[in-house]
Amino acid sequence: MRIARFSIDGNVAFGAVEGSAPDELVLDIIKGIPFADFELSGTKVPLSKVRLLPPVLPNKVVAYGRNYAAHAKELGNETPEVPFAFFKPSTSVIGPGDAIQYPSYSRELHHEAELAVVIGRMCREVPRERVKDVVLGYTCANDVTARDIQRTEKQWARAKGFDTACPLGPWVETDLDPADLTIQCTVNGAQRQLGRTGEMIHSVEDLVVNISEAMTLLPGDVILTGTPEGVGPLNVGDEVAVTIEGIGTLTNKVIKRG
Amino acid sequence: MRIARFSIDGNVAFGAVEGSAPDELVLDIIKGIPFADFELSGTKVPLSKVRLLPPVLPNKVVAYGRNYAAHAKELGNETPEVPFAFFKPSTSVIGPGDAIQYPSYSRELHHEAELAVVIGRMCREVPRERVKDVVLGYTCANDVTARDIQRTEKQWARAKGFDTACPLGPWVETDLDPADLTIQCTVNGAQRQLGRTGEMIHSVEDLVVNISEAMTLLPGDVILTGTPEGVGPLNVGDEVAVTIEGIGTLTNKVIKRG
Repeated sequence: MRIARFSIDGNVAFGAVEGSAPDELVLDIIKGIPFADFELSGTKVPLSKVRLLPPVLPNKVVAYGRNYAAHAKELGNETPEVPFAFFKPSTSVIGPGDAIQYPSYSRELHHEAELAVVIGRMCREVPRERVKDVVLGYTCANDVTARDIQRTEKQWARAKGFDTACPLGPWVETDLDPADLTIQCTVNGAQRQLGRTGEMIHSVEDLVVNISEAMTLLPGDVILTGTPEGVGPLNVGDEVAVTIEGIGTLTNKVIKRG
Repeated sequence: MRIARFSIDGNVAFGAVEGSAPDELVLDIIKGIPFADFELSGTKVPLSKVRLLPPVLPNKVVAYGRNYAAHAKELGNETPEVPFAFFKPSTSVIGPGDAIQYPSYSRELHHEAELAVVIGRMCREVPRERVKDVVLGYTCANDVTARDIQRTEKQWARAKGFDTACPLGPWVETDLDPADLTIQCTVNGAQRQLGRTGEMIHSVEDLVVNISEAMTLLPGDVILTGTPEGVGPLNVGDEVAVTIEGIGTLTNKVIKRG
């Protein structure tokens, strides 16, 4: 099932996306929330009539660095022996179609297409064989990065945590094997990144085990799994699109803040 | 005013701490919340009858590294030319008297006594002269750190973001000039850290300007301002206390998780 979060006439709801032709998708409005028992209402609205929102409102976004060897190499970095994680705050999250605001203090904004894992239930110290039970599904993410600031500031709160630095969407796909999916990023229609999730050094299971060893994950929390090679600049006016096989496309425009 | 958050008979409330003798403090229960207009109810309960909670529930905790030159030096680090920040997640926050759980994956847990700034209103791009208007007050914090993990993982989510890694309290002092306060840490009564907030490289104003340039701060968000020299090990069974002049003492015990 594809679960979207949307607003219509000032109301916010979750809905199941139905249909296959892009122009004819409809949302079957969900009674309840996707993190507990819920049912479809049978009331349907055309996707074209709603505004899609970030598919979840995470309490925290945990992001892993250098999880694709080819990307680590393109930035001149070693592949780390152990995975390492940082946070993007809830205030950085935007949805499909929302604008990425170019930070005033950066001159080198980059895209990073990533598979995002959406946590479905509160959990801690998740054994590998239980990871599938705590994952609600998967969505597309863009780990937007001020590359110049990342080089000058040892920890990355300002390089990767600014408002609008975490586009998520367009929806959460709950029926998906994340093991080997095509992941792609285009800027103004031109391909920049193309990889496969099968190239990850640490798998989705590895990452959920690794982070939940340290901290409680809450329903709606998101784990970003690293980006494949091909990262590059974003400029004001650009349209950046992240497409993951079996999920869909997350598109955002870059604007000047102000 | 000293604003505490507490539970009594299963109810959670804010209260103004009144009195001076430690054994005779009372809480005047607040009608409303401290982030908006509120008044004191006149209903008073002895502090000894309540359980103090974290004084705020932050959406995010922004923490600055190496903001005291003597501490940077003791760990063999350069003092950074620009301030750098990382996040501790909301799930790491505990209150006064709560237990710090020694992480299973670390063998070298350290205390770091810090002055914590509590944000009072939603803000972004705060000019230096307006910082005082967005700050609700100050409390004590312990930036508990798995020092061994900090050395092996390039970003510090697991080193500083594990559950219980962010004790805050005992309350928020709203009438305080943070410019030059004594800050102290003891373990089992023996002094480990002693410094003055006046030794900070970047002031409270600097830090609020720096982080709000990048991201929206929300009511209850917390900024940790760095630790003075003297950091050192915590062991299971230890009692660690952070005392800041004009605020009070935040005490926590270290236990084995399980």
